[in-house]
Amino acid sequence: MKKIAIFLSILLSLSLTLCSFTSSDNEPTATISEETETCIACHASLHPGIVKSWENSLHAKISPIEANKKDNLEKRMSSMPENEALSKVTVGCYECHSLNTDKHADSFEHNGYTINVVVTPDDCSACHNEEKKQYDNNLMSHAYANLMENEVYQSLKSTINNDITFKEGSFHYGETNKLTDADACLHCHGTKLEVKGTFTKETDFGELSFPNIEGWPNQGVGRINPDGSKGSCTSCHPRHTFSIKTARTPDACAQCHKGPDVPAYKVYQVSSHGKIYNSSKDKYDLTAVPWVIGKDFDIPTCATCHVSLITDEDGTVVAQRTHQFNDRLSSRLFGVPYAHPHPISPETHKIVNDAGLQLATNLDGSPASSFLIDEQEQEKRNNTMKQICNKCHSSNWTDNHFARLTDVIRTTNESTLAATQILTKIWEEGYADNSNLFDEYIERQWVDVWLFHANGTRLSAAMAGGGDYGVFADGRYQLTNKLFYLLEWLKNNQDKNSKKKKKK
Amino acid sequence: MKKIAIFLSILLSLSLTLCSFTSSDNEPTATISEETETCIACHASLHPGIVKSWENSLHAKISPIEANKKDNLEKRMSSMPENEALSKVTVGCYECHSLNTDKHADSFEHNGYTINVVVTPDDCSACHNEEKKQYDNNLMSHAYANLMENEVYQSLKSTINNDITFKEGSFHYGETNKLTDADACLHCHGTKLEVKGTFTKETDFGELSFPNIEGWPNQGVGRINPDGSKGSCTSCHPRHTFSIKTARTPDACAQCHKGPDVPAYKVYQVSSHGKIYNSSKDKYDLTAVPWVIGKDFDIPTCATCHVSLITDEDGTVVAQRTHQFNDRLSSRLFGVPYAHPHPISPETHKIVNDAGLQLATNLDGSPASSFLIDEQEQEKRNNTMKQICNKCHSSNWTDNHFARLTDVIRTTNESTLAATQILTKIWEEGYADNSNLFDEYIERQWVDVWLFHANGTRLSAAMAGGGDYGVFADGRYQLTNKLFYLLEWLKNNQDKNSKKKKKK
Amino acid sequence: MKKIAIFLSILLSLSLTLCSFTSSDNEPTATISEETETCIACHASLHPGIVKSWENSLHAKISPIEANKKDNLEKRMSSMPENEALSKVTVGCYECHSLNTDKHADSFEHNGYTINVVVTPDDCSACHNEEKKQYDNNLMSHAYANLMENEVYQSLKSTINNDITFKEGSFHYGETNKLTDADACLHCHGTKLEVKGTFTKETDFGELSFPNIEGWPNQGVGRINPDGSKGSCTSCHPRHTFSIKTARTPDACAQCHKGPDVPAYKVYQVSSHGKIYNSSKDKYDLTAVPWVIGKDFDIPTCATCHVSLITDEDGTVVAQRTHQFNDRLSSRLFGVPYAHPHPISPETHKIVNDAGLQLATNLDGSPASSFLIDEQEQEKRNNTMKQICNKCHSSNWTDNHFARLTDVIRTTNESTLAATQILTKIWEEGYADNSNLFDEYIERQWVDVWLFHANGTRLSAAMAGGGDYGVFADGRYQLTNKLFYLLEWLKNNQDKNSKKKKKK
Repeated sequence: MKKIAIFLSILLSLSLTLCSFTSSDNEPTATISEETETCIACHASLHPGIVKSWENSLHAKISPIEANKKDNLEKRMSSMPENEALSKVTVGCYECHSLNTDKHADSFEHNGYTINVVVTPDDCSACHNEEKKQYDNNLMSHAYANLMENEVYQSLKSTINNDITFKEGSFHYGETNKLTDADACLHCHGTKLEVKGTFTKETDFGELSFPNIEGWPNQGVGRINPDGSKGSCTSCHPRHTFSIKTARTPDACAQCHKGPDVPAYKVYQVSSHGKIYNSSKDKYDLTAVPWVIGKDFDIPTCATCHVSLITDEDGTVVAQRTHQFNDRLSSRLFGVPYAHPHPISPETHKIVNDAGLQLATNLDGSPASSFLIDEQEQEKRNNTMKQICNKCHSSNWTDNHFARLTDVIRTTNESTLAATQILTKIWEEGYADNSNLFDEYIERQWVDVWLFHANGTRLSAAMAGGGDYGVFADGRYQLTNKLFYLLEWLKNNQDKNSKKKKKK
Repeated sequence: MKKIAIFLSILLSLSLTLCSFTSSDNEPTATISEETETCIACHASLHPGIVKSWENSLHAKISPIEANKKDNLEKRMSSMPENEALSKVTVGCYECHSLNTDKHADSFEHNGYTINVVVTPDDCSACHNEEKKQYDNNLMSHAYANLMENEVYQSLKSTINNDITFKEGSFHYGETNKLTDADACLHCHGTKLEVKGTFTKETDFGELSFPNIEGWPNQGVGRINPDGSKGSCTSCHPRHTFSIKTARTPDACAQCHKGPDVPAYKVYQVSSHGKIYNSSKDKYDLTAVPWVIGKDFDIPTCATCHVSLITDEDGTVVAQRTHQFNDRLSSRLFGVPYAHPHPISPETHKIVNDAGLQLATNLDGSPASSFLIDEQEQEKRNNTMKQICNKCHSSNWTDNHFARLTDVIRTTNESTLAATQILTKIWEEGYADNSNLFDEYIERQWVDVWLFHANGTRLSAAMAGGGDYGVFADGRYQLTNKLFYLLEWLKNNQDKNSKKKKKK
Repeated sequence: MKKIAIFLSILLSLSLTLCSFTSSDNEPTATISEETETCIACHASLHPGIVKSWENSLHAKISPIEANKKDNLEKRMSSMPENEALSKVTVGCYECHSLNTDKHADSFEHNGYTINVVVTPDDCSACHNEEKKQYDNNLMSHAYANLMENEVYQSLKSTINNDITFKEGSFHYGETNKLTDADACLHCHGTKLEVKGTFTKETDFGELSFPNIEGWPNQGVGRINPDGSKGSCTSCHPRHTFSIKTARTPDACAQCHKGPDVPAYKVYQVSSHGKIYNSSKDKYDLTAVPWVIGKDFDIPTCATCHVSLITDEDGTVVAQRTHQFNDRLSSRLFGVPYAHPHPISPETHKIVNDAGLQLATNLDGSPASSFLIDEQEQEKRNNTMKQICNKCHSSNWTDNHFARLTDVIRTTNESTLAATQILTKIWEEGYADNSNLFDEYIERQWVDVWLFHANGTRLSAAMAGGGDYGVFADGRYQLTNKLFYLLEWLKNNQDKNSKKKKKK
C-alpha cells in the first residue's frame, strides 16, 4: 500500500514538476536528480510551501558545474562537490540532505534512501567552502559556547531563564530549562541539536520512523549540529530559497539585532541610509553578484558594509566578500560591559580577565589585551570599512565619522565605569550581594547601563543613526537616569546604615 | 440653486465616471445604480479620496449576482442580498449606506434619499453572512463589553483614563471621560456610537442636516453600532477599498497588536516568517481567493494562520476561512494575568472566578474551568493550526514548537504567581491598599509583570519570534527585574515597619 | 602626472556618461555643463555612489529653463538662477557647489575651480527661493539656537551629553563635548559647521588640499552653515537624488521623529493611515507634482498633511505647498512641558515666561501668550488642515477628531501639572535640589511625564493613531505610573524627615 502510494505520487509529481519548469525564465535549465524527483513526488503535496520555495531558488535552476563556469566575480560558489554526480544536477532535496550522512547523528533510512534532517554548514561547504571557512572565524559560529561556556553570562542567564518560584520570603531557581533556553537566548545563539532515539508516525504513505531531535527547530547562528559542525546558513539565507536577496536586506539581521541590547536594525531604520533604502528599495537590485555600487544600489544595507563582495562598474573590488563579518570591524561594541578592540579568536569564552572572569575587560574597563587585536589590526580593519564609505563620502566625512565613534566609545566606557564604581561601593558596603552579579534589582540597573544604554549609544554612533538612539531612545538619557538611580540608592542605604550605627 | 448644483454635478460626474471605468482591467464590468451615481455626482468632488478608493475596489467592478457565479473556493461572498435589485448592480455608496435604514439610529434624509452614516457588520452581512456570523463568535466583536462591563478592567481603566489632579497630598480622579476613552482604550476596542440629535451645515449644495454621532469616528473591532450590531469590518478591511490585501498584511493587525501588552506585530517582524515576508513581499499574491500555499505565497502572514481560507494547488483545503480567529487557538495568551484555555463564550465579561472577579483564573492562576474550553477542544484547535504549519514544516518541527509554547505558558504563569504572592503579602501587611488593584506604583509593577512581560514572552514563543521579545525586549529580563523590585520593596517596608514596632 | 590622470579620466568618463544617458527615459534631456563633466571625470570612479544617485535625479535630466516652462501647479521650482548660464544646463556638481563661493567659509581651490563642500539652503534658493523663505519661518531651521541658546534645554543637555565621572561620592560633569553633541542632539537639530584651516591629502590625482570642517558630517534640520545660512535641504531630500519621493515617505520623517520624545513615525505606523499606506504603497505615485488626491494616492503620508501641494483632479488646490510646516498646525505638542498655541516666531529660544525661563508656558501650564498665536490664528490653521481631512472624511468626522485632540491637550497638561506640583513640593521641602532641574533621578521621572508620556499621548491623538501610543506604549499608563512614583517618593521622604524631627 505504502509503495503504491509513493509510486502514484511520483508519476503525478513528475508531470507537475515538468510543467512548473517549462514556465521558468531565461536561467539555464539543469536536470533534477532522480533521487530528488522521488522526494518531490511525495513532498510536493505534503510540503508544498518548501517545495515551491526551492523551485524559486537558484539551486533549482542551475547545476554546480554550470554555476562554476561563471566569471570569478560573478561566482556564487567557491568549491566543487567531491562527488562528481552531484555537480551535474540541480541542487535539490537529496543533494543537500544526503551529503554526509555518515557524520550525521540525525541520519535515517527514509523510503530506501539514507538522508538526514538538518543541513549544516559542513554540508553547504561542498560548494561554498570559502564562505564556510570564513564563517568558522566569525564570532557567530561560536555563539553557543560563547554564551553557554562563559560563567559570567551563565550566571546572568540563570536569573532570567530558569524557572523561578517565591517561597518563604525569597526566590528559588530551578535547574537549566532547555525548553526555555531554546525559546530565549538560544533562539539566536543556536541550540545544541541532540538525537534522542527515533519516533514512529503514521503518514499518508504508511508508518515511517524519524529521528527525535532535541533542540529542534532552531536556526540560530551558532547552532551545534548533529554532525558536530557549528552554525546555520539558514539564519540569514532562509530555507529553501536560500535567498541572497533576503540575506542582503536589513530584515535578515533584524531577527537577532533589534532588541535593546543590540538595536542595530532600529538604528539603521532611522539613519540616513535606512531612510533612503526604505523609500527607494524597489529600485535596487539586491540579487546581483558582484554587487555593483552605483549600478545595483546607491545606499548600503547591513550586508553592504559587513559582508558582501562590492565592486564598482568597471569591476574593481571595493570590498571582498567575507562571512567573518568582523574583518571590517575594529571594536566590539555590544554584549559586553565595556567596548574594546575585537578579540583575536572568535571563541570569546576562552578570554579571561585579570580577575579570572571570562570577560575581555577588567571591571575598570581596562582591556585583557593579550586576547585582543592590536592597534595596527584595528586600523587595518577600519581602513577596509572606510573603502566602502569613501565610495559615496569624502574622506573628511568618513574620518570625522570615525573620530566621533572613537570618542563615543571613550565616553560610554567612562559612564559604565561610573556605574560600576557605585555598584562596587554598594557591594563593598554590603547593601547587595555579589555572589551572583545579576540577581538583585540594583544590579540589574547596572546591567541596563552597559547592556542597553552604552551599547545602544555606540551602535547609534557606529551606524551614523545618531539622534534618538543615542539620546532618548534607550540612550544617554536613560543611561544617566540609571546613574542617578544607582547613586540615590547607595545614599539611601548609607543613610539607613548610619542610623543603625548611631543607635548602637 | 441646490438642485441645479446637484444636477450639473451629476452630468459632470457621469462622464468622469464612465471615463474612469473604460480604462478598467479585465474584471467583469457591472452597472452602477442610479442612486450611487447621484451620490458620486457630488461626492466625487467633495470626497475624491474615498470615491477613488471605492473605484479601485472589487465592489465597484462586479455585482453580487456575478460574484456569486464563481466556484465555491473562489467566492468572496457567502450570501445573496434579499433585495434582488441590489444584486444586479455594483456595490456602491447607496447599496451599503441604505441597506437597513429602519434599524439605524443614524438614518437621515439626504437629497431625497434615506441613508445612514455608519455601515455595520449587519449591513455587510447581506452578502457576507457567514463571515458576520463567525465574527459574532469572535472575542473581538465583544471587545466593548469585555472591557467596559468588566469591573476589574474598569478599575484599571479609571486609573489610566480618568482626569487626574493632585490636591492636598493625594490624587483625585474625575468621572469617566468619554473623549479620553475614545482616544485611548476604545480606539481599538470600539466606541459606543450614539446619535445625539442632528446638526445643520451650510455646504456647496445648500444647507443640509446630519445626525450628530457621539463616539464617531471609530473603527474599533467591537464598536457598538447605531443599528445595535457589534464590530466594524473596516477595522481590517479599510473603507472604501475593503481590501482583502490590506487585511492579509501584518500591517492590518499592527494597528491594535503592537504595544507592549500585545507585541504580536513586533514579534512577527523579527521572526523567520517576518524576515522572509518583508524581504520578498513584492512577489506574493495577497489578493487571491482561495489563497494557495506555494503558488501565491510561501510564508505566512497573520491572516494565513489565523483567518484565511488556505488550499494547496490541487484545491485541497488546508484551513477553512474563519472570522472567529480563535477557531485555531487553544489558549488565551494576552490581556490577562495568567494564560489559560480559551473561553467558551466570546463574552469574557461574563466569566467569574472563585473570588467573584470577572477573570478567567483565580489569583493563584488556577482556571475558572467551567467557562473555558476543555483539553479535547484545545487539542482540536491546535490540530487545526498544525495543519497549516505542517505544509512547510515536518510534524516533528511543529510538535516541538508547540511543546515549547506549552512550557512557556507554564513558566510565565509561574512567574506571575511569584509576583502575585509578593504583592499579596504587601497588601496583607498593609504597605499598599488593594481597594483598587491598580492605583499605586508597586501595584503597577505587578501589572507590568503579566500585562507586558509574561504576555510578550508568550506571544514571542507562540509565533516562533523568540529571541529578544522573550528576553531583553520587554521579556523575561524585564520580568525578573520587576520580581526583584517587588521583593526589595516588600523588604524595605518590612524593615521600616520592624523599626517602628521596636520603638513601641 | 596629476594633470594627465585627470585628462584620461575625463575622456573615459565622457564616454561612460554619454552611455548612461542614452539609455535614459522620456524626460527631456539637457546638456551637462563642461565644469560638471570635469567633476564627473574623476568622481565617477572615486564616488560612483553619489554620481549615480545624481544621474537618477531630476536635476540630471532637465535644465532650470526647461523646468520653468511647466504649468504653474506642475512646477518644482519657484525662481530662476541669477546667473543665466546656470539656467541652460542640468543642475550638476558644479552648478550647486560653486554658487556662492564668496560667502562660503568652506570654499577652496580644486583642480582649477573654486567650489565649496557644503551646499546650503541659500544655494538651493537660486531655484527654490519660495521654499527657502518658507523654511526660514519653520521652527526646524532654527533648531540649533532653539536648543543651544535656551538655558533650560542646555541644563538638560549638560546632564545627558557631558562626560560624566564618579568621584568621592558624587558625579562630575565635563565641559560641553562637541563630538558628543554632534552625535546626539545635534544629529537632528543640526551642528554648527566651522572651517578650521585646511588639510592636505595624497589622492589618486596627486596631493590636494581641502577645508577642515568641524561639525561635519551633519544633515540636521537647523544646521549652521559655512555661508551663515540655516538648515539642510538634505535632511528630507537626501543627496544626491534630492528625491521628492523620499521626502514624501514617512521614512524621511522617521529619522528625527521616532524616539519616545516624538513618536510620530511610530504612531503613524499603527494608525489607519499607516496601515493602508504600508499595505498599498506600491500603487501610489509619490513623485507627481501637483499631488492629486484620488489619482496619485488615497491615503496621506506625513508630507500630505504637513507640507505638500495637494490638488484634486480638476486642479483645485486643496492645500498650498509649505515648507513652514506649522502653517497647518495650531498647537505645539511636543518637546515642551505643556502643549500650547504655536509660537509666533520660529525662534523659540527668544520666548521668556513669567519666571524668566525660556519656556512658552509657566510651571503651572499657563501660556506666555504674548509670544504665541491667538485663537483666531489657531482656528485658521486648523481650518487649513481640515481642508485636507475633509477630502476623505465628513466634516462631522473631522470636527470630532479635533474635539478629541483639544481635550487630550487639556488632560495631558493637567497630568503634567500634577507631576509638577509634586516635584515642586519635593524641591520646597528640600528632598531634591532645583539648582539644575534635570540631574536627579526623581527630576527625571518628572521629565518622563511630559517629554515622553504627555507628548506621546498627544501625538497619538493628533494623528488618530490612538490606541497603544496613548495607553500602554509610553502613554497614559506609563504617565500615571510616574505620577504614582513621584507621590510615593515624596511620602517616603516626608516620612523619613518626620522621624528625624521627632528625634530632635
